[in-house]
Amino acid sequence: MTTVTVIGLGPMGQALAGALLDAGHCVTVWNRTESKAAPLLSRGAHQATDPARAVTASDLTLINVVDHDAVDSVVAAAGDAVAGRVLVGLSSDTPQRAAQTAKLVNDAGGRYLDGAIMTPTDVIGTPDASVLFAGPRDLFDGHRALLQALGTATWLGADLGRAAAFDMALLDVFWTAVSGFLHALETARAQGITPGELLPHSLGIAAILPPIFTELAERIEADRHDDSAASVSSVAASLTHLIAHSENSGVDAGALRALQRYVGDVVAAGDGDREISRIAAAMRA
Amino acid sequence: MTTVTVIGLGPMGQALAGALLDAGHCVTVWNRTESKAAPLLSRGAHQATDPARAVTASDLTLINVVDHDAVDSVVAAAGDAVAGRVLVGLSSDTPQRAAQTAKLVNDAGGRYLDGAIMTPTDVIGTPDASVLFAGPRDLFDGHRALLQALGTATWLGADLGRAAAFDMALLDVFWTAVSGFLHALETARAQGITPGELLPHSLGIAAILPPIFTELAERIEADRHDDSAASVSSVAASLTHLIAHSENSGVDAGALRALQRYVGDVVAAGDGDREISRIAAAMRA
Repeated sequence: MTTVTVIGLGPMGQALAGALLDAGHCVTVWNRTESKAAPLLSRGAHQATDPARAVTASDLTLINVVDHDAVDSVVAAAGDAVAGRVLVGLSSDTPQRAAQTAKLVNDAGGRYLDGAIMTPTDVIGTPDASVLFAGPRDLFDGHRALLQALGTATWLGADLGRAAAFDMALLDVFWTAVSGFLHALETARAQGITPGELLPHSLGIAAILPPIFTELAERIEADRHDDSAASVSSVAASLTHLIAHSENSGVDAGALRALQRYVGDVVAAGDGDREISRIAAAMRA
Repeated sequence: MTTVTVIGLGPMGQALAGALLDAGHCVTVWNRTESKAAPLLSRGAHQATDPARAVTASDLTLINVVDHDAVDSVVAAAGDAVAGRVLVGLSSDTPQRAAQTAKLVNDAGGRYLDGAIMTPTDVIGTPDASVLFAGPRDLFDGHRALLQALGTATWLGADLGRAAAFDMALLDVFWTAVSGFLHALETARAQGITPGELLPHSLGIAAILPPIFTELAERIEADRHDDSAASVSSVAASLTHLIAHSENSGVDAGALRALQRYVGDVVAAGDGDREISRIAAAMRA
Protein backbone atom coordinates (compact mmCIF):
# COMPACT_ATOMS: atom_id res chain seq x y z
CA MET A 1 0.00 0.00 0.00
CA THR A 2 1.44 3.33 -1.09
CA THR A 3 0.81 6.61 0.68
CA VAL A 4 -0.41 9.37 -1.60
CA THR A 5 -1.77 12.85 -0.97
CA VAL A 6 -4.28 14.65 -3.18
CA ILE A 7 -4.42 18.44 -2.87
CA GLY A 8 -7.36 20.20 -4.53
CA LEU A 9 -10.79 18.56 -4.30
CA GLY A 10 -12.75 20.04 -7.17
CA PRO A 11 -14.64 17.50 -9.33
CA MET A 12 -11.36 16.23 -10.85
CA GLY A 13 -9.51 16.04 -7.50
CA GLN A 14 -12.44 14.09 -6.06
CA ALA A 15 -12.24 11.66 -8.99
CA LEU A 16 -8.46 11.26 -8.59
CA ALA A 17 -8.66 10.61 -4.84
CA GLY A 18 -11.59 8.22 -5.38
CA ALA A 19 -9.65 6.19 -7.97
CA LEU A 20 -6.64 5.95 -5.61
CA LEU A 21 -8.89 4.79 -2.75
CA ASP A 22 -10.47 2.21 -5.07
CA ALA A 23 -6.98 0.97 -5.95
CA GLY A 24 -6.30 0.38 -2.24
CA HIS A 25 -3.87 3.20 -1.56
CA CYS A 26 -3.61 5.14 1.70
CA VAL A 27 -4.94 8.55 0.66
CA THR A 28 -4.55 11.86 2.47
CA VAL A 29 -6.46 14.88 1.16
CA TRP A 30 -6.37 18.61 1.64
CA ASN A 31 -8.58 21.35 0.22
CA ARG A 32 -8.86 25.03 1.03
CA THR A 33 -12.58 24.54 1.68
CA GLU A 34 -12.43 21.66 4.18
CA SER A 35 -16.01 20.45 3.72
CA LYS A 36 -15.26 19.20 0.20
CA ALA A 37 -13.29 16.33 1.74
CA ALA A 38 -16.37 14.80 3.41
CA PRO A 39 -17.34 12.26 0.69
CA LEU A 40 -13.73 11.01 0.55
CA LEU A 41 -13.35 10.76 4.33
CA SER A 42 -16.39 8.49 4.43
CA ARG A 43 -14.56 6.26 1.92
CA GLY A 44 -11.45 6.02 4.12
CA ALA A 45 -9.33 9.03 3.19
CA HIS A 46 -7.45 11.00 5.84
CA GLN A 47 -7.75 14.77 6.03
CA ALA A 48 -4.70 16.97 6.59
CA THR A 49 -5.19 20.31 8.32
CA ASP A 50 -2.75 22.28 6.15
CA PRO A 51 -0.59 21.85 3.01
CA ALA A 52 2.61 21.12 5.00
CA ARG A 53 0.97 18.23 6.87
CA ALA A 54 -0.64 17.05 3.62
CA VAL A 55 2.73 16.84 1.86
CA THR A 56 4.40 15.24 4.90
CA ALA A 57 1.74 12.51 5.09
CA SER A 58 2.82 10.77 1.86
CA ASP A 59 5.78 10.02 -0.37
CA LEU A 60 3.89 11.38 -3.35
CA THR A 61 1.57 14.38 -3.54
CA LEU A 62 -0.75 15.07 -6.48
CA ILE A 63 -1.80 18.71 -6.84
CA ASN A 64 -4.88 19.46 -8.91
CA VAL A 65 -5.88 23.09 -8.41
CA VAL A 66 -7.10 25.68 -10.93
CA ASP A 67 -3.71 26.60 -12.45
CA HIS A 68 -0.01 26.90 -11.64
CA ASP A 69 -0.38 30.15 -9.71
CA ALA A 70 -2.53 28.09 -7.35
CA VAL A 71 -0.03 25.18 -7.45
CA ASP A 72 2.77 27.54 -6.49
CA SER A 73 0.70 28.90 -3.59
CA VAL A 74 0.31 25.35 -2.28
CA VAL A 75 4.04 24.67 -2.66
CA ALA A 76 4.87 27.91 -0.83
CA ALA A 77 2.39 27.08 1.94
CA ALA A 78 3.94 23.61 2.35
CA GLY A 79 7.33 25.28 2.92
CA ASP A 80 10.03 23.02 4.36
CA ALA A 81 7.73 19.99 4.17
CA VAL A 82 8.52 19.79 0.43
CA ALA A 83 12.13 18.69 1.08
CA GLY A 84 12.60 15.04 0.13
CA ARG A 85 9.08 14.68 -1.26
CA VAL A 86 7.78 14.11 -4.79
CA LEU A 87 5.15 16.56 -6.03
CA VAL A 88 3.11 15.94 -9.17
CA GLY A 89 1.30 18.93 -10.68
CA LEU A 90 -1.86 18.00 -12.57
CA SER A 91 -3.20 21.49 -13.17
CA SER A 92 -3.62 22.86 -16.67
CA ASP A 93 -1.30 25.71 -17.59
CA THR A 94 1.45 26.69 -20.02
CA PRO A 95 4.82 24.88 -20.37
CA GLN A 96 6.61 27.92 -18.92
CA ARG A 97 4.50 27.79 -15.75
CA ALA A 98 5.17 24.07 -15.35
CA ALA A 99 8.91 24.74 -15.52
CA GLN A 100 8.59 27.55 -12.92
CA THR A 101 6.76 25.22 -10.53
CA ALA A 102 9.46 22.58 -11.01
CA LYS A 103 12.12 25.14 -10.06
CA LEU A 104 10.17 26.17 -6.96
CA VAL A 105 9.85 22.54 -5.83
CA ASN A 106 13.49 21.75 -6.59
CA ASP A 107 14.67 24.87 -4.75
CA ALA A 108 12.73 23.62 -1.70
CA GLY A 109 14.55 20.29 -1.88
CA GLY A 110 11.71 18.35 -3.47
CA ARG A 111 11.34 16.66 -6.84
CA TYR A 112 8.71 17.50 -9.43
CA LEU A 113 6.84 15.62 -12.15
CA ASP A 114 4.39 17.52 -14.33
CA GLY A 115 1.15 15.98 -15.52
CA ALA A 116 -1.89 16.77 -17.63
CA ILE A 117 -5.27 15.05 -17.45
CA MET A 118 -6.87 14.71 -20.90
CA THR A 119 -10.09 13.11 -19.74
CA PRO A 120 -13.46 13.96 -18.15
CA THR A 121 -13.85 13.12 -14.47
CA ASP A 122 -16.21 10.18 -15.04
CA VAL A 123 -13.62 7.92 -16.70
CA ILE A 124 -10.79 8.59 -14.22
CA GLY A 125 -9.64 5.27 -12.78
CA THR A 126 -10.30 3.36 -16.01
CA PRO A 127 -7.96 2.60 -18.94
CA ASP A 128 -10.03 5.06 -21.04
CA ALA A 129 -8.59 7.90 -18.98
CA SER A 130 -5.46 9.50 -20.43
CA VAL A 131 -2.96 11.19 -18.13
CA LEU A 132 0.24 12.59 -19.65
CA PHE A 133 3.48 13.13 -17.73
CA ALA A 134 6.76 14.92 -18.35
CA GLY A 135 9.87 15.31 -16.22
CA PRO A 136 12.44 12.99 -14.63
CA ARG A 137 11.92 9.49 -16.00
CA ASP A 138 12.90 7.82 -12.71
CA LEU A 139 10.06 9.62 -10.94
CA PHE A 140 7.56 8.41 -13.52
CA ASP A 141 8.90 4.85 -13.53
CA GLY A 142 9.15 4.71 -9.74
CA HIS A 143 5.51 5.71 -9.27
CA ARG A 144 4.10 4.22 -12.43
CA ALA A 145 1.89 1.62 -10.70
CA LEU A 146 0.23 4.31 -8.63
CA LEU A 147 -0.15 6.70 -11.58
CA GLN A 148 -1.76 3.91 -13.64
CA ALA A 149 -4.51 3.78 -11.02
CA LEU A 150 -5.67 7.13 -12.42
CA GLY A 151 -5.88 5.88 -16.01
CA THR A 152 -3.51 5.19 -18.88
CA ALA A 153 -0.34 7.04 -17.83
CA THR A 154 2.01 8.13 -20.64
CA TRP A 155 5.48 9.60 -20.16
CA LEU A 156 6.24 12.16 -22.90
CA GLY A 157 9.86 12.94 -22.11
CA ALA A 158 12.22 14.61 -19.67
CA ASP A 159 11.43 18.14 -20.93
CA LEU A 160 9.27 19.44 -18.10
CA GLY A 161 7.12 21.61 -20.38
CA ARG A 162 6.12 18.77 -22.66
CA ALA A 163 3.01 17.55 -20.82
CA ALA A 164 1.74 21.13 -20.64
CA ALA A 165 2.47 21.68 -24.35
CA PHE A 166 0.43 18.56 -25.20
CA ASP A 167 -2.24 19.73 -22.75
CA MET A 168 -2.51 23.14 -24.42
CA ALA A 169 -2.76 21.59 -27.91
CA LEU A 170 -5.36 19.01 -26.86
CA LEU A 171 -7.46 21.51 -24.91
CA ASP A 172 -7.34 23.66 -28.03
CA VAL A 173 -8.82 20.78 -30.08
CA PHE A 174 -11.40 20.14 -27.37
CA TRP A 175 -12.60 23.69 -26.64
CA THR A 176 -12.66 24.72 -30.28
CA ALA A 177 -14.77 21.70 -31.21
CA VAL A 178 -17.13 22.18 -28.25
CA SER A 179 -17.42 25.88 -29.05
CA GLY A 180 -18.25 25.09 -32.68
CA PHE A 181 -20.93 22.63 -31.60
CA LEU A 182 -22.49 25.19 -29.22
CA HIS A 183 -22.38 27.75 -32.04
CA ALA A 184 -24.06 25.32 -34.44
CA LEU A 185 -26.78 24.51 -31.87
CA GLU A 186 -27.49 28.19 -31.34
CA THR A 187 -27.58 28.98 -35.06
CA ALA A 188 -29.79 25.95 -35.72
CA ARG A 189 -32.20 26.98 -32.95
CA ALA A 190 -32.64 30.35 -34.64
CA GLN A 191 -33.75 28.34 -37.71
CA GLY A 192 -36.27 26.24 -35.76
CA ILE A 193 -34.03 23.17 -35.44
CA THR A 194 -33.96 21.79 -31.88
CA PRO A 195 -30.74 20.55 -30.23
CA GLY A 196 -32.24 17.05 -30.17
CA GLU A 197 -32.85 17.17 -33.93
CA LEU A 198 -29.33 18.36 -34.70
CA LEU A 199 -27.56 15.99 -32.28
CA PRO A 200 -27.62 12.71 -34.27
CA HIS A 201 -26.29 14.44 -37.37
CA SER A 202 -23.63 16.21 -35.28
CA LEU A 203 -22.51 12.82 -33.97
CA GLY A 204 -22.17 11.82 -37.63
CA ILE A 205 -19.81 14.75 -38.11
CA ALA A 206 -17.84 13.78 -34.99
CA ALA A 207 -17.49 10.29 -36.47
CA ILE A 208 -15.81 11.54 -39.65
CA LEU A 209 -13.22 13.64 -37.77
CA PRO A 210 -10.70 10.84 -36.95
CA PRO A 211 -9.78 9.92 -40.55
CA ILE A 212 -9.71 13.61 -41.49
CA PHE A 213 -7.47 14.48 -38.52
CA THR A 214 -5.21 11.59 -39.54
CA GLU A 215 -4.88 12.75 -43.14
CA LEU A 216 -4.30 16.37 -42.10
CA ALA A 217 -1.59 15.39 -39.61
CA GLU A 218 0.16 13.23 -42.23
CA ARG A 219 0.00 16.02 -44.82
CA ILE A 220 1.34 18.67 -42.44
CA GLU A 221 4.11 16.35 -41.21
CA ALA A 222 5.15 15.83 -44.85
CA ASP A 223 4.43 19.47 -45.85
CA ARG A 224 2.36 18.01 -48.73
CA HIS A 225 -0.72 19.98 -49.75
CA ASP A 226 -1.27 18.84 -53.35
CA ASP A 227 -3.94 16.52 -54.85
CA SER A 228 -6.63 18.25 -52.86
CA ALA A 229 -9.99 16.52 -52.35
CA ALA A 230 -11.05 19.62 -50.40
CA SER A 231 -9.37 22.79 -51.60
CA VAL A 232 -8.83 25.96 -49.62
CA SER A 233 -10.94 27.85 -52.21
CA SER A 234 -13.90 25.54 -51.59
CA VAL A 235 -13.63 26.29 -47.87
CA ALA A 236 -13.58 30.01 -48.69
CA ALA A 237 -16.90 29.65 -50.55
CA SER A 238 -18.39 27.58 -47.75
CA LEU A 239 -17.31 30.07 -45.07
CA THR A 240 -18.94 32.97 -46.91
CA HIS A 241 -22.30 31.18 -46.66
CA LEU A 242 -21.71 29.98 -43.09
CA ILE A 243 -20.85 33.42 -41.79
CA ALA A 244 -23.76 35.10 -43.57
CA HIS A 245 -26.10 32.42 -42.24
CA SER A 246 -24.81 32.75 -38.67
CA GLU A 247 -25.04 36.53 -38.64
CA ASN A 248 -28.45 36.52 -40.37
CA SER A 249 -29.55 34.17 -37.58
CA GLY A 250 -28.40 36.70 -34.97
CA VAL A 251 -25.44 34.60 -33.82
CA ASP A 252 -21.89 36.00 -33.67
CA ALA A 253 -19.51 34.33 -36.14
CA GLY A 254 -16.19 35.20 -34.48
CA ALA A 255 -14.55 31.79 -34.73
CA LEU A 256 -15.59 31.34 -38.37
CA ARG A 257 -14.35 34.83 -39.17
CA ALA A 258 -10.94 33.92 -37.73
CA LEU A 259 -10.80 30.87 -40.02
CA GLN A 260 -11.93 33.05 -42.93
CA ARG A 261 -8.93 35.34 -42.38
CA TYR A 262 -6.47 32.43 -42.60
CA VAL A 263 -8.24 31.02 -45.65
CA GLY A 264 -8.21 34.45 -47.29
CA ASP A 265 -4.46 34.73 -46.70
CA VAL A 266 -3.88 31.33 -48.33
CA VAL A 267 -6.00 32.27 -51.37
CA ALA A 268 -4.24 35.66 -51.61
CA ALA A 269 -0.90 33.82 -51.60
CA GLY A 270 -2.06 31.93 -54.71
CA ASP A 271 -2.56 28.62 -52.89
CA GLY A 272 -6.37 28.39 -53.17
CA ASP A 273 -6.11 25.08 -55.03
CA ARG A 274 -4.08 23.44 -52.22
CA GLU A 275 -5.48 21.03 -49.64
CA ILE A 276 -7.02 22.47 -46.47
CA SER A 277 -3.94 21.24 -44.57
CA ARG A 278 -2.28 24.35 -46.08
CA ILE A 279 -4.40 26.55 -43.77
CA ALA A 280 -2.38 25.66 -40.64
CA ALA A 281 0.68 27.61 -41.74
CA ALA A 282 -1.49 30.71 -42.31
CA MET A 283 -2.33 30.73 -38.60
CA ARG A 284 1.23 31.73 -37.78
CA ALA A 285 0.93 35.35 -36.79
CA MET B 1 -33.38 1.42 -64.71
CA THR B 2 -33.96 5.06 -63.88
CA THR B 3 -32.56 7.91 -65.92
CA VAL B 4 -30.68 10.47 -63.88
CA THR B 5 -28.50 13.45 -64.78
CA VAL B 6 -25.60 14.75 -62.71
CA ILE B 7 -24.55 18.35 -63.34
CA GLY B 8 -21.26 19.47 -61.81
CA LEU B 9 -18.33 17.04 -61.87
CA GLY B 10 -16.04 18.22 -59.13
CA PRO B 11 -14.78 15.49 -56.75
CA MET B 12 -18.25 15.19 -55.15
CA GLY B 13 -20.14 15.18 -58.47
CA GLN B 14 -17.79 12.47 -59.73
CA ALA B 15 -18.55 10.40 -56.63
CA LEU B 16 -22.31 10.90 -57.00
CA ALA B 17 -22.32 9.92 -60.68
CA GLY B 18 -20.06 6.94 -59.94
CA ALA B 19 -22.41 5.67 -57.21
CA LEU B 20 -25.41 5.97 -59.54
CA LEU B 21 -23.56 4.07 -62.29
CA ASP B 22 -22.61 1.39 -59.75
CA ALA B 23 -26.30 1.11 -58.81
CA GLY B 24 -27.15 0.40 -62.44
CA HIS B 25 -28.81 3.66 -63.39
CA CYS B 26 -28.66 5.33 -66.79
CA VAL B 27 -26.52 8.37 -66.02
CA THR B 28 -26.10 11.53 -68.12
CA VAL B 29 -23.50 14.09 -67.05
CA TRP B 30 -22.68 17.70 -67.84
CA ASN B 31 -19.88 19.90 -66.64
CA ARG B 32 -18.72 23.33 -67.74
CA THR B 33 -15.25 21.90 -68.32
CA GLU B 34 -16.13 18.95 -70.55
CA SER B 35 -12.96 16.95 -69.98
CA LYS B 36 -13.91 16.20 -66.39
CA ALA B 37 -16.54 13.78 -67.69
CA ALA B 38 -13.96 11.42 -69.21
CA PRO B 39 -13.59 8.95 -66.28
CA LEU B 40 -17.40 8.63 -66.07
CA LEU B 41 -17.89 8.17 -69.81
CA SER B 42 -15.50 5.24 -69.71
CA ARG B 43 -17.77 3.72 -67.04
CA GLY B 44 -20.87 4.06 -69.21
CA ALA B 45 -22.19 7.57 -68.55
CA HIS B 46 -23.56 9.72 -71.39
CA GLN B 47 -22.36 13.26 -71.88
CA ALA B 48 -24.79 16.09 -72.65
CA THR B 49 -23.53 19.05 -74.63
CA ASP B 50 -25.38 21.73 -72.67
CA PRO B 51 -27.53 22.11 -69.51
CA ALA B 52 -30.82 22.02 -71.46
CA ARG B 53 -29.98 18.67 -73.08
CA ALA B 54 -28.66 17.40 -69.74
CA VAL B 55 -31.94 18.16 -67.96
CA THR B 56 -34.01 16.79 -70.86
CA ALA B 57 -32.12 13.48 -70.83
CA SER B 58 -33.52 12.33 -67.46
CA ASP B 59 -36.56 12.52 -65.22
CA LEU B 60 -34.35 13.60 -62.33
CA THR B 61 -31.35 15.95 -62.37
CA LEU B 62 -28.89 16.30 -59.49
CA ILE B 63 -26.99 19.59 -59.44
CA ASN B 64 -23.78 19.74 -57.41
CA VAL B 65 -21.93 22.95 -58.20
CA VAL B 66 -20.08 25.36 -55.91
CA ASP B 67 -23.12 27.20 -54.50
CA HIS B 68 -26.67 28.34 -55.35
CA ASP B 69 -25.54 31.21 -57.54
CA ALA B 70 -23.98 28.51 -59.70
CA VAL B 71 -27.10 26.31 -59.38
CA ASP B 72 -29.28 29.19 -60.56
CA SER B 73 -26.98 29.77 -63.55
CA VAL B 74 -27.47 26.14 -64.56
CA VAL B 75 -31.26 26.41 -64.15
CA ALA B 76 -31.30 29.59 -66.23
CA ALA B 77 -29.13 27.97 -68.91
CA ALA B 78 -31.48 24.96 -69.04
CA GLY B 79 -34.38 27.35 -69.75
CA ASP B 80 -37.58 25.71 -71.03
CA ALA B 81 -36.08 22.24 -70.58
CA VAL B 82 -36.83 22.55 -66.84
CA ALA B 83 -40.60 22.31 -67.42
CA GLY B 84 -41.96 18.98 -66.18
CA ARG B 85 -38.60 17.90 -64.73
CA VAL B 86 -37.43 17.32 -61.17
CA LEU B 87 -34.27 19.14 -60.10
CA VAL B 88 -32.38 18.30 -56.91
CA GLY B 89 -29.89 20.87 -55.66
CA LEU B 90 -27.02 19.35 -53.66
CA SER B 91 -24.85 22.45 -53.34
CA SER B 92 -24.07 23.96 -49.98
CA ASP B 93 -25.62 27.37 -49.32
CA THR B 94 -28.02 29.20 -47.01
CA PRO B 95 -31.72 28.28 -46.52
CA GLN B 96 -32.74 31.53 -48.24
CA ARG B 97 -30.77 30.63 -51.35
CA ALA B 98 -32.33 27.15 -51.47
CA ALA B 99 -35.79 28.75 -51.39
CA GLN B 100 -34.83 31.15 -54.19
CA THR B 101 -33.65 28.27 -56.37
CA ALA B 102 -36.91 26.42 -55.69
CA LYS B 103 -38.89 29.46 -56.86
CA LEU B 104 -36.77 29.72 -60.01
CA VAL B 105 -37.37 26.04 -60.84
CA ASN B 106 -41.09 26.25 -60.03
CA ASP B 107 -41.49 29.38 -62.14
CA ALA B 108 -39.96 27.47 -65.05
CA GLY B 109 -42.54 24.69 -64.61
CA GLY B 110 -40.22 22.25 -62.85
CA ARG B 111 -40.24 20.81 -59.37
CA TYR B 112 -37.43 21.20 -56.81
CA LEU B 113 -36.05 19.15 -53.94
CA ASP B 114 -33.17 20.56 -51.90
CA GLY B 115 -30.38 18.37 -50.58
CA ALA B 116 -27.21 18.58 -48.51
CA ILE B 117 -24.35 16.08 -48.53
CA MET B 118 -22.85 15.65 -45.03
CA THR B 119 -20.12 13.22 -46.03
CA PRO B 120 -16.67 13.10 -47.65
CA THR B 121 -16.54 11.88 -51.26
CA ASP B 122 -14.99 8.52 -50.43
CA VAL B 123 -18.02 7.10 -48.61
CA ILE B 124 -20.62 8.23 -51.16
CA GLY B 125 -22.57 5.19 -52.33
CA THR B 126 -22.33 3.45 -48.94
CA PRO B 127 -24.78 3.51 -45.98
CA ASP B 128 -22.15 5.56 -44.08
CA ALA B 129 -22.86 8.49 -46.38
CA SER B 130 -25.49 10.91 -45.10
CA VAL B 131 -27.54 12.97 -47.54
CA LEU B 132 -30.27 15.23 -46.18
CA PHE B 133 -33.32 16.39 -48.16
CA ALA B 134 -36.06 18.96 -47.71
CA GLY B 135 -39.01 19.94 -49.87
CA PRO B 136 -42.08 18.17 -51.29
CA ARG B 137 -42.42 14.78 -49.64
CA ASP B 138 -43.83 13.12 -52.77
CA LEU B 139 -40.66 14.03 -54.66
CA PHE B 140 -38.49 12.46 -51.98
CA ASP B 141 -40.65 9.35 -51.68
CA GLY B 142 -40.97 8.98 -55.45
CA HIS B 143 -37.20 9.01 -55.97
CA ARG B 144 -36.15 7.47 -52.69
CA ALA B 145 -34.68 4.30 -54.18
CA LEU B 146 -32.43 6.32 -56.46
CA LEU B 147 -31.44 8.78 -53.72
CA GLN B 148 -30.54 5.88 -51.42
CA ALA B 149 -27.93 4.84 -54.00
CA LEU B 150 -25.97 7.92 -52.87
CA GLY B 151 -26.02 6.94 -49.18
CA THR B 152 -28.46 7.09 -46.29
CA ALA B 153 -31.09 9.58 -47.51
CA THR B 154 -33.07 11.43 -44.83
CA TRP B 155 -36.08 13.68 -45.46
CA LEU B 156 -36.15 16.56 -42.94
CA GLY B 157 -39.50 18.11 -43.82
CA ALA B 158 -41.42 20.10 -46.40
CA ASP B 159 -39.77 23.41 -45.43
CA LEU B 160 -37.40 23.92 -48.35
CA GLY B 161 -34.76 25.68 -46.25
CA ARG B 162 -34.44 22.88 -43.75
CA ALA B 163 -31.73 20.79 -45.46
CA ALA B 164 -29.64 23.93 -45.91
CA ALA B 165 -30.16 24.94 -42.27
CA PHE B 166 -28.93 21.51 -41.15
CA ASP B 167 -26.09 21.77 -43.67
CA MET B 168 -24.98 25.15 -42.29
CA ALA B 169 -25.07 23.88 -38.69
CA LEU B 170 -23.19 20.68 -39.48
CA LEU B 171 -20.56 22.41 -41.62
CA ASP B 172 -20.13 24.79 -38.69
CA VAL B 173 -19.37 21.81 -36.39
CA PHE B 174 -17.05 20.35 -39.01
CA TRP B 175 -15.03 23.41 -40.02
CA THR B 176 -14.69 24.71 -36.49
CA ALA B 177 -13.37 21.34 -35.28
CA VAL B 178 -10.99 21.00 -38.25
CA SER B 179 -9.80 24.56 -37.76
CA GLY B 180 -9.16 23.89 -34.06
CA PHE B 181 -7.15 20.78 -34.91
CA LEU B 182 -5.04 22.67 -37.48
CA HIS B 183 -4.49 25.41 -34.88
CA ALA B 184 -3.45 22.85 -32.28
CA LEU B 185 -1.03 21.19 -34.73
CA GLU B 186 0.56 24.53 -35.57
CA THR B 187 0.87 25.58 -31.92
CA ALA B 188 2.28 22.18 -30.98
CA ARG B 189 4.83 22.35 -33.81
CA ALA B 190 6.10 25.64 -32.41
CA GLN B 191 6.72 23.69 -29.16
CA GLY B 192 8.62 20.88 -30.89
CA ILE B 193 5.72 18.43 -30.97
CA THR B 194 5.28 16.82 -34.40
CA PRO B 195 1.84 16.26 -35.99
CA GLY B 196 2.43 12.52 -35.73
CA GLU B 197 3.10 12.80 -31.98
CA LEU B 198 -0.02 14.87 -31.36
CA LEU B 199 -2.34 12.81 -33.58
CA PRO B 200 -3.08 9.79 -31.33
CA HIS B 201 -3.90 12.05 -28.40
CA SER B 202 -6.07 14.23 -30.66
CA LEU B 203 -7.99 11.12 -31.69
CA GLY B 204 -8.53 10.55 -27.96
CA ILE B 205 -10.09 14.01 -27.75
CA ALA B 206 -12.28 13.28 -30.80
CA ALA B 207 -13.45 10.11 -29.03
CA ILE B 208 -14.74 12.01 -25.98
CA LEU B 209 -16.76 14.49 -28.06
CA PRO B 210 -19.90 12.34 -28.67
CA PRO B 211 -20.97 11.99 -25.00
CA ILE B 212 -20.15 15.65 -24.39
CA PHE B 213 -22.12 16.78 -27.46
CA THR B 214 -25.01 14.63 -26.22
CA GLU B 215 -25.00 16.14 -22.73
CA LEU B 216 -24.70 19.69 -24.08
CA ALA B 217 -27.61 19.19 -26.51
CA GLU B 218 -29.78 17.76 -23.73
CA ARG B 219 -28.93 20.63 -21.38
CA ILE B 220 -29.62 23.31 -23.98
CA GLU B 221 -32.86 21.64 -25.07
CA ALA B 222 -33.98 21.70 -21.40
CA ASP B 223 -32.38 25.12 -20.70
CA ARG B 224 -30.71 23.46 -17.70
CA HIS B 225 -27.23 24.72 -16.81
CA ASP B 226 -26.94 23.78 -13.12
CA ASP B 227 -24.91 21.01 -11.40
CA SER B 228 -21.89 21.84 -13.50
CA ALA B 229 -19.06 19.32 -13.81
CA ALA B 230 -17.29 21.90 -16.02
CA SER B 231 -18.13 25.47 -15.11
CA VAL B 232 -17.90 28.51 -17.37
CA SER B 233 -15.36 30.01 -14.93
CA SER B 234 -13.07 27.02 -15.32
CA VAL B 235 -13.18 27.50 -19.10
CA ALA B 236 -12.31 31.16 -18.60
CA ALA B 237 -9.18 30.16 -16.66
CA SER B 238 -8.24 27.56 -19.28
CA LEU B 239 -8.71 30.00 -22.16
CA THR B 240 -6.42 32.55 -20.57
CA HIS B 241 -3.60 29.99 -20.63
CA LEU B 242 -4.49 28.66 -24.07
CA ILE B 243 -4.52 32.09 -25.70
CA ALA B 244 -1.26 33.15 -24.02
CA HIS B 245 0.34 29.87 -25.09
CA SER B 246 -0.87 30.20 -28.69
CA GLU B 247 0.28 33.78 -29.05
CA ASN B 248 3.61 33.11 -27.28
CA SER B 249 4.07 30.33 -29.84
CA GLY B 250 3.54 32.84 -32.67
CA VAL B 251 0.15 31.43 -33.68
CA ASP B 252 -2.95 33.65 -33.98
CA ALA B 253 -5.64 32.80 -31.41
CA GLY B 254 -8.66 34.33 -33.17
CA ALA B 255 -11.09 31.43 -32.64
CA LEU B 256 -10.13 31.07 -28.97
CA ARG B 257 -10.48 34.82 -28.49
CA ALA B 258 -14.03 34.66 -29.89
CA LEU B 259 -14.87 31.94 -27.35
CA GLN B 260 -13.22 34.01 -24.61
CA ARG B 261 -15.57 36.91 -25.39
CA TYR B 262 -18.68 34.73 -24.95
CA VAL B 263 -17.27 33.18 -21.77
CA GLY B 264 -16.44 36.64 -20.43
CA ASP B 265 -20.02 37.78 -21.07
CA VAL B 266 -21.40 34.78 -19.16
CA VAL B 267 -19.08 35.43 -16.19
CA ALA B 268 -19.96 39.17 -16.26
CA ALA B 269 -23.65 38.19 -16.15
CA GLY B 270 -22.97 36.37 -12.86
CA ASP B 271 -23.30 32.88 -14.40
CA GLY B 272 -19.67 31.75 -14.05
CA ASP B 273 -20.70 28.78 -11.92
CA ARG B 274 -23.09 27.44 -14.60
CA GLU B 275 -22.37 24.55 -16.96
CA ILE B 276 -20.54 25.28 -20.22
CA SER B 277 -23.86 24.70 -22.03
CA ARG B 278 -24.68 28.23 -20.82
CA ILE B 279 -22.11 29.64 -23.30
CA ALA B 280 -24.32 29.01 -26.36
CA ALA B 281 -26.81 31.74 -25.46
CA ALA B 282 -23.94 34.24 -25.14
CA MET B 283 -23.14 33.73 -28.84
CA ARG B 284 -26.36 35.50 -29.78
CA ALA B 285 -25.22 38.87 -31.04
